[in-house]
Amino acid sequence: MTAIDYQQIIEQLHHSLSAVEATGETADYIPELAQVDANQMGVYVLDQQGRCYQTGDWQQTFSIQSVVKVLTLCMAYSELGTALWQRVGMEPSGTPFNSLGHLEHEQGVPRNPFSNAGALVVCDVLMGLYDDPLAALLGLIRQTSGNPEIDVNPVVAESEKSEGHRNMALAHLMKSLGNINHDVDDLLDFYFNACSITLNCQDLAKTFAFLAHRGRCPQSDQHILDNSQSKRINAIMLTCGFYDEAGDFAFKVGLPGKSGVSGAIVALLPGHFVVTTWSPGLNAKGNSQRGLQFLEAFTTETGQSIF
Amino acid sequence: MTAIDYQQIIEQLHHSLSAVEATGETADYIPELAQVDANQMGVYVLDQQGRCYQTGDWQQTFSIQSVVKVLTLCMAYSELGTALWQRVGMEPSGTPFNSLGHLEHEQGVPRNPFSNAGALVVCDVLMGLYDDPLAALLGLIRQTSGNPEIDVNPVVAESEKSEGHRNMALAHLMKSLGNINHDVDDLLDFYFNACSITLNCQDLAKTFAFLAHRGRCPQSDQHILDNSQSKRINAIMLTCGFYDEAGDFAFKVGLPGKSGVSGAIVALLPGHFVVTTWSPGLNAKGNSQRGLQFLEAFTTETGQSIF
Amino acid sequence: MTAIDYQQIIEQLHHSLSAVEATGETADYIPELAQVDANQMGVYVLDQQGRCYQTGDWQQTFSIQSVVKVLTLCMAYSELGTALWQRVGMEPSGTPFNSLGHLEHEQGVPRNPFSNAGALVVCDVLMGLYDDPLAALLGLIRQTSGNPEIDVNPVVAESEKSEGHRNMALAHLMKSLGNINHDVDDLLDFYFNACSITLNCQDLAKTFAFLAHRGRCPQSDQHILDNSQSKRINAIMLTCGFYDEAGDFAFKVGLPGKSGVSGAIVALLPGHFVVTTWSPGLNAKGNSQRGLQFLEAFTTETGQSIF
Amino acid sequence: MTAIDYQQIIEQLHHSLSAVEATGETADYIPELAQVDANQMGVYVLDQQGRCYQTGDWQQTFSIQSVVKVLTLCMAYSELGTALWQRVGMEPSGTPFNSLGHLEHEQGVPRNPFSNAGALVVCDVLMGLYDDPLAALLGLIRQTSGNPEIDVNPVVAESEKSEGHRNMALAHLMKSLGNINHDVDDLLDFYFNACSITLNCQDLAKTFAFLAHRGRCPQSDQHILDNSQSKRINAIMLTCGFYDEAGDFAFKVGLPGKSGVSGAIVALLPGHFVVTTWSPGLNAKGNSQRGLQFLEAFTTETGQSIF
Repeated sequence: MTAIDYQQIIEQLHHSLSAVEATGETADYIPELAQVDANQMGVYVLDQQGRCYQTGDWQQTFSIQSVVKVLTLCMAYSELGTALWQRVGMEPSGTPFNSLGHLEHEQGVPRNPFSNAGALVVCDVLMGLYDDPLAALLGLIRQTSGNPEIDVNPVVAESEKSEGHRNMALAHLMKSLGNINHDVDDLLDFYFNACSITLNCQDLAKTFAFLAHRGRCPQSDQHILDNSQSKRINAIMLTCGFYDEAGDFAFKVGLPGKSGVSGAIVALLPGHFVVTTWSPGLNAKGNSQRGLQFLEAFTTETGQSIF
Repeated sequence: MTAIDYQQIIEQLHHSLSAVEATGETADYIPELAQVDANQMGVYVLDQQGRCYQTGDWQQTFSIQSVVKVLTLCMAYSELGTALWQRVGMEPSGTPFNSLGHLEHEQGVPRNPFSNAGALVVCDVLMGLYDDPLAALLGLIRQTSGNPEIDVNPVVAESEKSEGHRNMALAHLMKSLGNINHDVDDLLDFYFNACSITLNCQDLAKTFAFLAHRGRCPQSDQHILDNSQSKRINAIMLTCGFYDEAGDFAFKVGLPGKSGVSGAIVALLPGHFVVTTWSPGLNAKGNSQRGLQFLEAFTTETGQSIF
Repeated sequence: MTAIDYQQIIEQLHHSLSAVEATGETADYIPELAQVDANQMGVYVLDQQGRCYQTGDWQQTFSIQSVVKVLTLCMAYSELGTALWQRVGMEPSGTPFNSLGHLEHEQGVPRNPFSNAGALVVCDVLMGLYDDPLAALLGLIRQTSGNPEIDVNPVVAESEKSEGHRNMALAHLMKSLGNINHDVDDLLDFYFNACSITLNCQDLAKTFAFLAHRGRCPQSDQHILDNSQSKRINAIMLTCGFYDEAGDFAFKVGLPGKSGVSGAIVALLPGHFVVTTWSPGLNAKGNSQRGLQFLEAFTTETGQSIF
Repeated sequence: MTAIDYQQIIEQLHHSLSAVEATGETADYIPELAQVDANQMGVYVLDQQGRCYQTGDWQQTFSIQSVVKVLTLCMAYSELGTALWQRVGMEPSGTPFNSLGHLEHEQGVPRNPFSNAGALVVCDVLMGLYDDPLAALLGLIRQTSGNPEIDVNPVVAESEKSEGHRNMALAHLMKSLGNINHDVDDLLDFYFNACSITLNCQDLAKTFAFLAHRGRCPQSDQHILDNSQSKRINAIMLTCGFYDEAGDFAFKVGLPGKSGVSGAIVALLPGHFVVTTWSPGLNAKGNSQRGLQFLEAFTTETGQSIF
């Protein structure tokens, strides 16, 4: 395969998208996120040969938010294997990210690991596997990204805790149904800290590169997942990565990916590239508006998608 | 890319799967389907170069059932384009295939075109586009498959009508909510006839080849969809093709695909191959048990999937 | 107990309510009902001693609509006894009158006999008990009211049939789940005819008098239910008679009662009186707006309610 | 009306019910309740003239549990009047007592004040009205019952707190939706203490006598509610007092009433009597099995009900 020079494509798309005033809203339920300028946009592409392409606010840091759910899932899955699926499903739920939805009638087993409920269960699993799961998670991100400075932003974490009643409700509900083992306050502490890890588009692209390289991080040469596991994580991203907009993302973009309410999106074409975008204006479903527009145009322009 | 010789792989998998007594049940709500021997299994692979590989009961005919929903969707989408999505969504529903689920609270707009509700809306669209939509559908299948003998099995169609109360309920509900334009009895007549089209694994693989060839049928050279449309149909198959088992199929098999209660499954890797299986024993979700087992083993064995 | 002279009370209330322009809307989904003047209002009170009090448009005829569900229930219950409750529940549903709500997950057994679904099941029961259930129903109404002229209005019945897709959906859904035995078209024919029986406030009060007289019709001396059964029907009216406004009616009015989309309401205080109102302007829940206002004021004024 | 001598009736019913081994289960989710002997049964009747009738374990104390929800509702309603109904509805919910059910889609406004969610909102209201709402509640119970010894059982309260994750989930969910004003931990502390107030059948009957006396406590001559308010509380008890068994209780017993998981039931006929039963064996809906059997037989035997 001949390598594509993505630089011109991403600059052009960034330029045309930036020309329009952002209409999305920043997440208002986390005070610390609400204050960010919605017009910012960063893009970073890392291809299979290790070449990188970047434009806009790609050096600007942001909190990882729900994008971290893929990493915690990989950690839990690599340890537990298929036993993990007794605690959390892998089906699209057809409901918003913070829904209590089906939990009540399904014994507290979340439909998939990318809903908030599912991510809490995965965090509960990690608390059973690691003495200090946050340190383990930070270790993974620092090694794969090659950036030892990456850390939790305590102001964001505090901000999330102060407004975390919906997640408290989810955790207590699942605990009442027997699918949370650890103390709820400790669990939410870990979860909010994990969501508050702060990095930039480059860090994020490097961290996710292993999912485009059959489970191996090309920078650090760590084997995080085997090839089959890596494919399966990608499959879950495709079917569940964008909450009740997952079908739309698959239809328009055609890549496995995951979004966060800070406006971050990571998407990847196995064997080809990882692309990260960050733009904090969100659409009604809680996904970055410009990020989605960029990625749809990007896969149309390059003709590259999994389909 | 070097071509893989699939023959040995599919024979071996067919052999080992056939050695175990089928545990799935044939569909019991359609009398005509209930009588079939659940132990049968046919496989057919058609690769991008036009080579074909087949084993088992691949010449045995069966009714197409829900697999036809992909074809009616392609017909409606190629005519209406994005206007189609005002009548039916493209999100996984998280509910069984015949669910009335969300319809009541979502103005009769089905979540996706592969639920029964969604397929009925697509049929309603086709009734507005064609004087004789069944003839148009049969025409498409006969041309793409190259088999002019393919036709509706009237005994199966009658059998479905006699037990079609759930689909009647769906159609009347959507009509009461304004999302069905035509007479409900005529609509169901068309729908049940479409589901009762009878063919074999070879016919089905040839018919679906256009979705692995960027929308063009390699046998008849018809341009059924453009490349972008073809990718998008594949995306919908991946996220919604297996009802509330779609996530599981993406996870285990990693290919866009569609199943029917007759035990048929079609799956494809764009640019590489179409594979069809038929084995009438169904699992609890209504998908062919052996078909799923075969396809999981097939993509593991070949290392080929979209992820 | 000394008898109350209701005449002055009802005239005064009628007067003050009529002074305000009606804001309710006539039922728009049944063409024949939509054309009626929403400002009309009739009231009829029949006390335990047989004295009657009436005002306004009490002689104006209207279709009985859902009020008939109480009568069909009484007929089925007096024949089947407790066996009836295997086909339909007696719990408030918390959902609108035409909801498919819980049916799908509860084996097609409606929550109560006053939802449309529940009333259809009761009609299906009557079709098994009577050769001509419509004749039996008309016979009951004519005898208890003493008005042999009462009959179905065929224009209303036709009007309902033409828009009856929601009820068709309910009937087919329950048939698919095994809780409807008869042909769906025949069933709906009976149901729509029953709803289209036409009478006035006086007829309706006389027909319902047996529920205030321990099950015995004071005019015709028929024993329609025994005392215990009569109490139980009253209990179901109280908890389920006003769809998802049942709690509100119990709270504000404090009488067992039943409403219909034609704007009719019947309510009663066992051992004391039956009161019927008719005013076709409906509130958002599908209950007569002025009827509700009148009845709340009436029980406040007289100090008479079951609580 | 001539007074009925209830003594013989209740003794006979108690005798025949006690002859059968209790099949109900004690509440297992509150450790302290699980240990009680399910075969116990107490009955107390207090008639309008102040005569009392009692049998069995009527002096045995138990925690009031959900029966307290009526008292907290009366306190909040007498202060706020109709403004209360913006915070909590008055419709039967059609769901179990601890359901998160509709909350998610209805802005955190519970369907009625007798679900756990509704009771938590009422407690939140009381926390805004009183400096020490628990003291106010205890004051009301002590004065109306004439028993100054009544108090919280701290062991039960602790036991509830340790297993209170479902209620924590409800409170956090409503707080995230803006319908809880106070600190969730403080709220649950008040709620669990209120549920753990310990008394016997006599205390409970005396406490509830005001609802059979038009809002006035006949023992202490306190005016707790006016006549209209008292009727309305009775209406809510009738439609919502027994969770998803409310229709069944109205049908079989025909009295406004309220149950608790300790096995307590209070029921009353306005102008006639209050009856309390206590028997800790519960049916599948969480209501006292023998209590229900007793009350059905009691109203059948005496011929007294509101219908």
